[in-house]
Order: sequence, then structure tokens, then C-alpha cells
Amino acid sequence: MNVASIVLVDGAVANSIPVDDRGLMYGDGVFRTLRVVDSVPRWWNEQLAKLTVDCGRIGLPAPDVAEWNRDLATIAPSLSAGVLKLLVTRGSGPRGYSPQAAQKNRRLMRYDPGHMDAKRDFAAGISVRLCALRLGWQPRLAGVKHLNRLENVLARAEWDTPEFDEGLLLDQSEQVISGVMSNLFIWHRNRLLTPRLDQCGVAGAARDRLMRLARAQGLNVEETRLSLQAVLEADEAMLTNSLWGLRRVARLEAKIWPHPVISSRLSALLDA
Amino acid sequence: MNVASIVLVDGAVANSIPVDDRGLMYGDGVFRTLRVVDSVPRWWNEQLAKLTVDCGRIGLPAPDVAEWNRDLATIAPSLSAGVLKLLVTRGSGPRGYSPQAAQKNRRLMRYDPGHMDAKRDFAAGISVRLCALRLGWQPRLAGVKHLNRLENVLARAEWDTPEFDEGLLLDQSEQVISGVMSNLFIWHRNRLLTPRLDQCGVAGAARDRLMRLARAQGLNVEETRLSLQAVLEADEAMLTNSLWGLRRVARLEAKIWPHPVISSRLSALLDA
Repeated sequence: MNVASIVLVDGAVANSIPVDDRGLMYGDGVFRTLRVVDSVPRWWNEQLAKLTVDCGRIGLPAPDVAEWNRDLATIAPSLSAGVLKLLVTRGSGPRGYSPQAAQKNRRLMRYDPGHMDAKRDFAAGISVRLCALRLGWQPRLAGVKHLNRLENVLARAEWDTPEFDEGLLLDQSEQVISGVMSNLFIWHRNRLLTPRLDQCGVAGAARDRLMRLARAQGLNVEETRLSLQAVLEADEAMLTNSLWGLRRVARLEAKIWPHPVISSRLSALLDA
Repeated sequence: MNVASIVLVDGAVANSIPVDDRGLMYGDGVFRTLRVVDSVPRWWNEQLAKLTVDCGRIGLPAPDVAEWNRDLATIAPSLSAGVLKLLVTRGSGPRGYSPQAAQKNRRLMRYDPGHMDAKRDFAAGISVRLCALRLGWQPRLAGVKHLNRLENVLARAEWDTPEFDEGLLLDQSEQVISGVMSNLFIWHRNRLLTPRLDQCGVAGAARDRLMRLARAQGLNVEETRLSLQAVLEADEAMLTNSLWGLRRVARLEAKIWPHPVISSRLSALLDA
């Protein structure tokens, strides 16, 4: 771990967790990743709200917002620029899948200082490859940012060259769902479209936020099923996450989008 | 954790792991559970072989068998009867899904003493309910005993009464796959059938072993697609795992199988 990293486990500085934690045993937990800018974690309330909703989706008692606020106050003097990760597991428990005997949820806050490469030339855009892995369907977990992330790990392992910044993921029915670590938006005929996440995928805070803010601007925003063909024919394609904000896709395999259409406006909207 | 539990992390006694372990962050690892009888872990070589294969399935360097043997020698004086869990994660790494920068795999061995309730009346059988959760398909992970087990957790959370010993899981196409913590076999018209695990499910060591030993006895054993109707019409239904061995199903929801047909013979075969 980065020597300058700081970790709080249930509010106390710690670098380890008990081996019987159900987050380790079963991936029984959820998380959120926030960007820290000028010592402040961006979209704090929105991220906590989503974390709380995700806890509910897997029947995990969510930490109180007051607890997260206390943790944040504890590490606030150390914050500058970097990444803050909030993670909740079902805590320690006896052997076996049953969550009923788990003692108490466990709350982790981890801060890694470091500057994003966000100041790279926005207009240049990013290069995206198409992943071979197809996301499986599981409506009970769709949209949730839970700790079962092996699909993302396997998809990200498909490339190891700096040529590509991100990989595009399709699902088992060949519909486009998201990037490996980001959500997808396309702009096509004056509509802002993003894949519906009712069968798989992670509903990022940046995605929610952009949909809300774009609608408030009067834009036509739709969650829908998207084929790869629809993406390739789009006027523009964009990927969002909480660390990047919004990036425009300059290249998806052989397809090139030479210049921004609406992405710089949407990027500014998201970061406002 | 049980006060009498013993845990080795990379060969050294420990009760915790670093918070940046990818097993915790992403469920990036695999595991196996063994029953310890008379101070000896059952099916040791078979379990290590399966663990090694599973590591390969997710591109994780498997610990050397010599390392596991050393760990076992370390805790051997403490073993009596209980459960031994072997777990491998991709170890600590920097932020992000990419496994390439992970440092070194991490190896856990955990022993929990305790007697199984295995001496309960075999002929009485167990009661099984039908789970509402449907397993999603992911051929890249099908059969692997990996750390992404939220489906099992959610399925096991469906009941909290001692009335049922286990839950039966169907997949998204309504085919029967397994129990929540066990594999299924049915005996029908002189054939031993078990669900094919090419889309989802965990291929337990007891399942492999029973198929091999039954074939060596000249039985007709098939991995196949199984509907719920086929299970309900079977002459007998059985569930296997490494802790139980084999248990006959006496009841599945309203269906009753009043007495054993071939299960006691297969149970003896598996435990031999």
C-alpha cells in the first residue's frame, strides 16, 4: 500500500482487517470511490446516498451518515488531492453463507493521495477497446457496486498496453453495458442515451449525477438497451466515473470520433 | 472468530490481512473447504488439485503444493475434528481492477475445530426448499469456487428456520444447478445424473469424487441439464459437499422421498 495512504476501520486507524471478515470470505459488501479535490471529497452526499441504497440491496445494515462524517473529520487534516474509498462489509461472522449470524457491519475508509491525470487534453479523448468477456445477468445485483468484481478483473486483464485507456463491456445478449470502470453515454440525434442497468453493470454516482443535471438542462435523457452498432453510429460516445468525471471517446477499436460534439458541455455540467 | 480457530497467512500465524488485499477489494481469489476427521483433512490431494485448477481459471498464480504441505505440518499438532479452509487471493496491489500490478498471491489456511452433525440418522434425510434467487450465467467463472459468493449469500438469506437444511438453486433458464452449499445428484432409471456446470455453479470436490468413484463401479453417470420436474420425478435426490459427504433428500418442498434407494451405497462409496 502507498506509504502515504490512510485507512480507518470502524473509525480507528488500521492497516488490516480480521480474516473472518465476510467481505474477504464472500465479497459480502459494497463500496464507493470518490475523488478528493482541494481536500474535499466530491459528491459526498450523493455517494453516501448510493452506498446506503446498495447496502439495502444486499440486506446489509448501512453505517449511519454521522459515522462517515466522523471518519471524514478524522482524516480531513491529511486530505489534499487523491482518491477516497468507502467500503462496507457484513463484518465478521461464523463459517457459512448465512448472513444472519454476522456480528456487525464493518466500515472502511481509505485515502490514497495522488493527482489524477485529469488535466490531460480533454479534446484528445480516450481510446477504448472491446472486451471479449460478456457480463452475466443477475437482476438481484444489477446496478449495485458490490465487492464481487471478478468480471471486471478478468475484463481488465484482457489488455496490458497503454494504447487503451478503457475496455467496453457487452452483456450475454450482446448489448452494450458500460466500460470496465466507467459508465457509457452516447449522444445521438439530440438524445443522451445510457444503457439500462437492470440485468448487470454498476450504476456509478457520476452516471446518476449526469442524468439528473442533463435533464435539468432540458436535454432528452434515456436509459435504454444499446447495441454495439448504435454506439458506433452515435454522434459522440462518452465514459463517466467518479474519478475521471466525463471523458469523450476518441476511438473505439477501428471507429474514430475526430472531435467533441456535446462532451465538453456535459463534462463541465458534471464537474460543476 | 472461534477462540480455538487457527489461521496461517502465508505460513505465519495471523488473525488479519492487509486492507489492500484484492480478495477483500474485489473477491479476487478462490477457496476450498475441507473436513478434518481424526486430525486428517479429507481428500487433501484432490482439494489442492481443484484449488490449483481454479487459480488457473482466474489467471492467479497458484501456491505450490509444498507450501500447503508446510502449512499443514505447522498446524497439524492442533488438528482434531473440524473444518479446514484454504484460500488464495491475488494479494495486495495498487488501486484498480488490473491484476498485473498485484504483488504476490496470498495464502490463507484456517482451521475451525468442531464436530459435524454427520452422525445424525442418514436414512432420515434432509429437508430442502426451493430458492427464489436464480443463478446468473458466467461461463468464464462457471464451476470455479471463487470468492464472489453474493448469490449464495442472498440465496441463503431467504430462510432462517431450522426446518430446512438446504436450498435448491435454479439458473436464469430455470434449470436446476445445485444447493446453496452443495452439489446435486439424482438417481433415475438406473442413471446417476448431476447438473452440468458450464454456465454457473461450483464444482465441488465431493461431486468430482463421487462421479469418478461411481463410474469406477460401473454406474452410468452423466452431467446434463436438469429441470425441476426431472428432479421431482427422480427415484432419489442427493446433495454432496466436502463437509457432509452425501446426504439424501427426504423432502423438497411438498415432494417426499420416504426411504433411501441408492444413497447409502453412494454415501459409503464417497466416504471410503
